[in-house]
Amino acid sequence: MDNTDTSLSRAAGAETPAPEKTTIVVQSGDFDKLQSAFIISNGALAMGMEVSMYFTFWGLTRLKKDGGLDSGPLSKMNMLGLGKWMVKRRMKKAGAVTLEHLAQDFKELGGKIFACDMTMAIMGIKAEDLRQDLIEEYCSVGTYIEEARHSTITLFI
Amino acid sequence: MDNTDTSLSRAAGAETPAPEKTTIVVQSGDFDKLQSAFIISNGALAMGMEVSMYFTFWGLTRLKKDGGLDSGPLSKMNMLGLGKWMVKRRMKKAGAVTLEHLAQDFKELGGKIFACDMTMAIMGIKAEDLRQDLIEEYCSVGTYIEEARHSTITLFI
Amino acid sequence: MDNTDTSLSRAAGAETPAPEKTTIVVQSGDFDKLQSAFIISNGALAMGMEVSMYFTFWGLTRLKKDGGLDSGPLSKMNMLGLGKWMVKRRMKKAGAVTLEHLAQDFKELGGKIFACDMTMAIMGIKAEDLRQDLIEEYCSVGTYIEEARHSTITLFI
Repeated sequence: MDNTDTSLSRAAGAETPAPEKTTIVVQSGDFDKLQSAFIISNGALAMGMEVSMYFTFWGLTRLKKDGGLDSGPLSKMNMLGLGKWMVKRRMKKAGAVTLEHLAQDFKELGGKIFACDMTMAIMGIKAEDLRQDLIEEYCSVGTYIEEARHSTITLFI
Repeated sequence: MDNTDTSLSRAAGAETPAPEKTTIVVQSGDFDKLQSAFIISNGALAMGMEVSMYFTFWGLTRLKKDGGLDSGPLSKMNMLGLGKWMVKRRMKKAGAVTLEHLAQDFKELGGKIFACDMTMAIMGIKAEDLRQDLIEEYCSVGTYIEEARHSTITLFI
Repeated sequence: MDNTDTSLSRAAGAETPAPEKTTIVVQSGDFDKLQSAFIISNGALAMGMEVSMYFTFWGLTRLKKDGGLDSGPLSKMNMLGLGKWMVKRRMKKAGAVTLEHLAQDFKELGGKIFACDMTMAIMGIKAEDLRQDLIEEYCSVGTYIEEARHSTITLFI
């Protein structure tokens, strides 16, 4: 198997001083999936990458002022007999931090949060209903594609 | 179905070693996840990228003639008190289009839909049961890898 | 845990600027999603790519000795009237193999499985509770980012 295209894309990359990027669509509002999204994002930021997170559908509802980042359900309730209360207690014991804390770290490390404007229209969510302290920009799919096409890591969570 | 836009993106791609590609595995049959898949895909096509969608498992069942693209459930029923009926009504009000409409646009913009042949075997689905007007090819994982390894955006939805 | 297969693929990679990689986060413990993860991974390995899988949350619980790879639920139970029993029977008829078989193939083809140490702490899982015959390394997010930033295919399943 030849790797010609890989060498070409590396050569192309060498011509531009573009920083490495991670771009994540956050469609899920599940507690554990948001946690993975932020842990991956903060890890990438800590390692010198740029990171953009696009909150859409149920993910966006977690950015509502009256919603609360940490109030989402687990994606698999009661599996192993572990409820959310148990997971949170063990997280605390394991030194894992809250989603609110992870989101604050994300902002401080220079990460950018985008809010999907179509979701806002469909769900009847106004900008003032959302955590404007966390959101960088209200945008549509074009903004996402523009970031993602220049990213080395692209995920849909 | 014409491929005008694809030829345009190919022309643009000719300036560089390979055209930019987006490759999405659609495993979910949920209404809102299919919507995200098509909105991202159509956005990428509109911005000159090539796009391949691989429908597998529950995603593929949405391409059945008797299934109906728009008949899938929401991934989070009743969250926020929003049923699917409510989401659809608000989508209409917000100017958002149906999955059927998004799929037609996808084809017209030059996007390619692949059907997973292993899913067909497992679920007992025949080619004539599927929306052959939308499907480009019936294939296995090798075809997916070949497209994905040359893609800048890869997602699993 | 020997790395014989890995060193072979690294040697092959040394002939080119960098070997192509696929990196997958496996957060879901659903039977059908694990199946997609392994089918994609084994396909990529068979086509000469390197593959790393990062098992976290519910995905990691499937690697417990007393859990069983093949014992996870379907992500959409009863859809189309297809229960897991029916899916498994049809898989057998269609010549599709078990997750246990897919995981063994993955190892033999040189793939690497990483276990998320934070999930282990949160869920109270010890290394000896896990399938050490399958796991390459116990690690945190930094290891994932380091692999993913050099990957052409990145997925979150």
